[in-house]
Amino acid sequence: MHRRYTLADIAKRFSLKLQGREGVAIEPGTHVDGLATLMSAGVSQLGFFTNIAYRDQLQKTNAAAVILKESAVEDCPVPCLVADNPYLAYAKISVLFDIAPLRSSGIHASAVVDPSANVAASASIGPHCVIEAKAIIGEGVVLGAGCVVGEGSIIGARGYLHGRVTVYHGVTVGEDVVIHSGAVIGSDGFGFAPDFSMGGNGWCKIHQLGGVVVGNRVEIGANTCIDRGALDDTVIGDGVIIDNLVQIAHNVKIGNNTAIAACTGIAGSTEIGQNCTIAGAVGIVGHLKIADRVHITAKSLVTGSISKAGSYSSGTAMSPTSAWRKNAVRFSQLDSLFQRVRALESNRTDS
Amino acid sequence: MHRRYTLADIAKRFSLKLQGREGVAIEPGTHVDGLATLMSAGVSQLGFFTNIAYRDQLQKTNAAAVILKESAVEDCPVPCLVADNPYLAYAKISVLFDIAPLRSSGIHASAVVDPSANVAASASIGPHCVIEAKAIIGEGVVLGAGCVVGEGSIIGARGYLHGRVTVYHGVTVGEDVVIHSGAVIGSDGFGFAPDFSMGGNGWCKIHQLGGVVVGNRVEIGANTCIDRGALDDTVIGDGVIIDNLVQIAHNVKIGNNTAIAACTGIAGSTEIGQNCTIAGAVGIVGHLKIADRVHITAKSLVTGSISKAGSYSSGTAMSPTSAWRKNAVRFSQLDSLFQRVRALESNRTDS
Amino acid sequence: MHRRYTLADIAKRFSLKLQGREGVAIEPGTHVDGLATLMSAGVSQLGFFTNIAYRDQLQKTNAAAVILKESAVEDCPVPCLVADNPYLAYAKISVLFDIAPLRSSGIHASAVVDPSANVAASASIGPHCVIEAKAIIGEGVVLGAGCVVGEGSIIGARGYLHGRVTVYHGVTVGEDVVIHSGAVIGSDGFGFAPDFSMGGNGWCKIHQLGGVVVGNRVEIGANTCIDRGALDDTVIGDGVIIDNLVQIAHNVKIGNNTAIAACTGIAGSTEIGQNCTIAGAVGIVGHLKIADRVHITAKSLVTGSISKAGSYSSGTAMSPTSAWRKNAVRFSQLDSLFQRVRALESNRTDS
Repeated sequence: MHRRYTLADIAKRFSLKLQGREGVAIEPGTHVDGLATLMSAGVSQLGFFTNIAYRDQLQKTNAAAVILKESAVEDCPVPCLVADNPYLAYAKISVLFDIAPLRSSGIHASAVVDPSANVAASASIGPHCVIEAKAIIGEGVVLGAGCVVGEGSIIGARGYLHGRVTVYHGVTVGEDVVIHSGAVIGSDGFGFAPDFSMGGNGWCKIHQLGGVVVGNRVEIGANTCIDRGALDDTVIGDGVIIDNLVQIAHNVKIGNNTAIAACTGIAGSTEIGQNCTIAGAVGIVGHLKIADRVHITAKSLVTGSISKAGSYSSGTAMSPTSAWRKNAVRFSQLDSLFQRVRALESNRTDS
Repeated sequence: MHRRYTLADIAKRFSLKLQGREGVAIEPGTHVDGLATLMSAGVSQLGFFTNIAYRDQLQKTNAAAVILKESAVEDCPVPCLVADNPYLAYAKISVLFDIAPLRSSGIHASAVVDPSANVAASASIGPHCVIEAKAIIGEGVVLGAGCVVGEGSIIGARGYLHGRVTVYHGVTVGEDVVIHSGAVIGSDGFGFAPDFSMGGNGWCKIHQLGGVVVGNRVEIGANTCIDRGALDDTVIGDGVIIDNLVQIAHNVKIGNNTAIAACTGIAGSTEIGQNCTIAGAVGIVGHLKIADRVHITAKSLVTGSISKAGSYSSGTAMSPTSAWRKNAVRFSQLDSLFQRVRALESNRTDS
Repeated sequence: MHRRYTLADIAKRFSLKLQGREGVAIEPGTHVDGLATLMSAGVSQLGFFTNIAYRDQLQKTNAAAVILKESAVEDCPVPCLVADNPYLAYAKISVLFDIAPLRSSGIHASAVVDPSANVAASASIGPHCVIEAKAIIGEGVVLGAGCVVGEGSIIGARGYLHGRVTVYHGVTVGEDVVIHSGAVIGSDGFGFAPDFSMGGNGWCKIHQLGGVVVGNRVEIGANTCIDRGALDDTVIGDGVIIDNLVQIAHNVKIGNNTAIAACTGIAGSTEIGQNCTIAGAVGIVGHLKIADRVHITAKSLVTGSISKAGSYSSGTAMSPTSAWRKNAVRFSQLDSLFQRVRALESNRTDS
C-alpha cells in the first residue's frame, strides 16, 4: 500500500546530502516506506530532527535515516539526509508517503452535472456530486463524494475538495486549493435591517449580492464557513491557510499567506493583513484593519484596529477555580480599586 | 444575467420619492441592474447613504441614483430615491438583484422520497435529497442538493434550505425559514447520566425524546447546530436570526426576533428573551433566564441569569502580548492586592 | 407511534421497586408511553425526581408514576419506581421511548459501495452513502443518508452514524459509537512548514500520514471535527463523549470517559487524561498534558499543562458593559497598579 523510495532517490529529489558520521555505513539503495518520529521510526522509515530538545531521541533512533541539519550529523547513529531547513524538507518529503486515495479522472455515474457546466476531462467528480449550471471545474480538480458546486462557480486547476464540501453560486476558487469536508463557501452574510416600527416585519433580510474570491494555494479546513459579500466580494488571498470550524463573515479580506487556526471568527468587513498568524478561538469584531505580520494569541478578542506588526492578546491567566473565583469578582471592582489607590497616594502626598 | 429595473419602477414598488437637487436631471426611465457602495457604484447601479461618515463619498458618487434621507438630497450629485429609512429601503430593494439561482418546482430524479411523505407540488426538491417517512414539505419550499429531512418532520411553506442541510426526525420548521448549508437541526442533546460506580458502564446516554420547533421567518446560518430537547422541545421563536457555527443545546428557548451572531454557544435549558442581540462567540451557560432586549458583547461568558434589559460584557481589553502577560499574571494576584490596599487604608485610618 | 409498557414491566426490566405511600393504589398493569417532567407528565407518562429543589412539583405531579429514591416516596402522590440512582434509571429507561426511526438492514439502491468494501449483512446503509475501497462496516451498523466512509476505514459493530457524516480514509471507529450529522473524522491536521525565504512558496503543506482511532462507546456531536494525525494517530479513548462543534486537532489523545462540551477546541498533540470534564467553549493550546479528573470551566483558556486533578478557570466575571468597560481598561494598567501599591507599602514601612 505504501510507496517505497531509496535514500538516494529522496536525496536527489529534494537536493539533500546523504551522509553519515564516521562509522555509519551509507547504503544509497536502502528503501524507505514512511515517515515517523525519532522514537517510533523503524528501519524502513525516515525520521527528522528539528528541535534540540529531542537530541537524546536522535541519539537512540532506529530510523533508516534522519533529516537534519549539518550540525547534527555527529549526534546521529544512522544515515543522514542533510538539509538547510529540515522541517521544510520533512514537509516536502511527506507528500511521498501520503496515503490519501488517488482519484481517477472522470465523472461518477451518480453525479448530477448540469449540461452547461464545464468540467475538465482530467477532473475527478465523485459519487453524488452536484455541479450546477455554468460552473467551471478546472484541470486535475478532485471533488470528493457529495460535493455541491453552485451556479457559475469556478474551481481552479488542481483543486482538491474532500467529500461533502458546499460551494454556493458565484464563488471563484483559485488554483491548487484544498477544501476539507463540510466547509461552506458562499453562504449568505449575516445582514439584516431592523424593521421593528409599527407595522414592521422584524429583521428584513439584506440579500447578499457579492461573491467569494479564494486565491491560489489556499487550504480551508473542515466545517469552516466563508460567507459571500453583501455587495462586493469576500476575499481570501493567495497562500492563506485556514483551519477547521473558522467563521469568515461577509466582506472580510484576508491578506496573502495569513494563517488562521481553528474556531476563530472574523466579523464582517474586517481586513486582515498579509503574513498574519491568528491563533485558535480568536474573535475579531467587524470593520477593523489589522496590519501585516500581526500575531494574535489564542482566544483573544480583538476590538480595535491594529496598525503595527507584533503580538497581541486579551484574556486572563488560568488558575484553580477557587482562586479564580475570588479574582474574577475583584475584576468587577477594579476601577474602584484604582480610585482607592489614588486616594491613598494623594493622602501620602498631602501628609 | 442581472435583472433590470427603471428608477420609476423601483420608486413605485418601494414607495420612495424620486427627486434630485437643483440641476440634477431626473430620468425615470433610467435602468439599473445592481446595488453597490457609493464609491464603486457605476452608472447602472444604485447606491445608498445611511452613515454621515461617508458624506464625501456621497458627494463624489457616480451611481445611477442613491437611496437616502430627504436631508441628504442637497449633498447628492445624482438622482435620489428618498426614504424615511434608507437602510431598510436598501434591504428591501436588495431582493431585486439577488443572483441566487431560481429553482423550478418538482422532485429531482435522484432524490429519495418516502412514499408516505407529503411534498407540495410547488416545492423544489434538489438532487440527492432524502425525505423520510411522513415528512411534510410545504408549498414553495426549496431543498437544495443533498438535504435530508427526517421522519415526520415538517418544513413550512416557502422554506429555503440550501444544499446539505440535515433535519432530523420530529422537527417542525415554520414558514419562510432560510437554513444554510451544513446546518443540523434536531441532533441529540448532550445528555448523559454518570454511571461510574463499581460495575457501571460509564456515561449512560439519555435518549433525547423531544424535538425542535422553529418559528416563522427564521434564518439559520451555515453549519449551525440546534439540538432536539431531552423531554420537551427546543424552541426557536418567530423572526429569530442565527448566524453560522452557532450551537443551541437541548431545551433552549429563544424569544422572538432575537439575533445571534456567529460562533456563539448556548447551553442546555437556557431561555433567551425577545429582541435580544447576542454578539459573536458569546458563551451562555445552562439553565439561565435572559430578559428581553438584552445585548451581550462579543466573546462574553454569561454565567448568571439577567433580569434587566441592557448591555452586558465579560473579558479584558486587548493589548500587546508583552504588556498583557504582566497584567494577566497580576490578575491571579488581584484578591491579595485588594487585601493589601485594605491594609494600607486601615493603616492610614489608624495613623 | 410510541411504544407502551406496563409499570410492572419497567420495574422488572430495570430492577426497580414499584411501590407507593399509604393510600396510593398501585396498578402494575398501568400502561405508560412516555417520559416527561414532573409538571408536564400526563397520566400515561413517567416522571422522575432527582433534585430536591423540585419537591413541590413532585407533590403536585399527575404522572402515571415517578422514578425516585426511597426517601421521596412519602412526597409522591402517585405510584413510585424506586431506584438507588433515579437519574441513571431515567437515562436507562429513556431508550424505551426513543422516537428515532428504526433502520432496516441492507444497502439502499442509491448508495455507492466499492466492491472491495466489507459491509456486514446486518448493517443498514442509507440512501446516497458512499463506502470506499476496503472499508469495513460492522454488524448492526447504521449509516444515515449521505454518509461517506473513506478507503480502508472501519466502523465497529453497532455504530450509528446519523446523516451526512464524513469519515476519511484510514480511520478506525470502535463499537457502539454514535456520530451525529456533519461530523468530520480524519480531515488533515493543520500542519504547514513556513517557506518564506527568497524563492520560497509560502506555507508548505505537511501531508498528514497518521489516522484517527476512536474507541468503543464514544459519542461525537454534530459538526464536530477530529483531525487525523501528522505521523501517529489521533486517539479518542473508550467511553468519551463529545458535544457539537468541537475541534480536536491532530495527535490529540483523549483519555477514557472524558466529556467535552460544545464549541471547545483542543490544539495539536495535547493529551487529556481520563474522566475529565471540559465545559463548553474551552480552548486548550497544543502540546500540553492534562491530568485525570480535571474539570475546566466554560470558556476558559488552558495555556499550561495541569498535573493535578481539580477545577480550573480563566476569564472574568460578567457585568453591565458600562461598568465592564472601565474595569477592562483598568486591567491593562494592573501591573502598574501593583507597583503603585508596592510604593505605598514601602512608603508606609519607611515612615
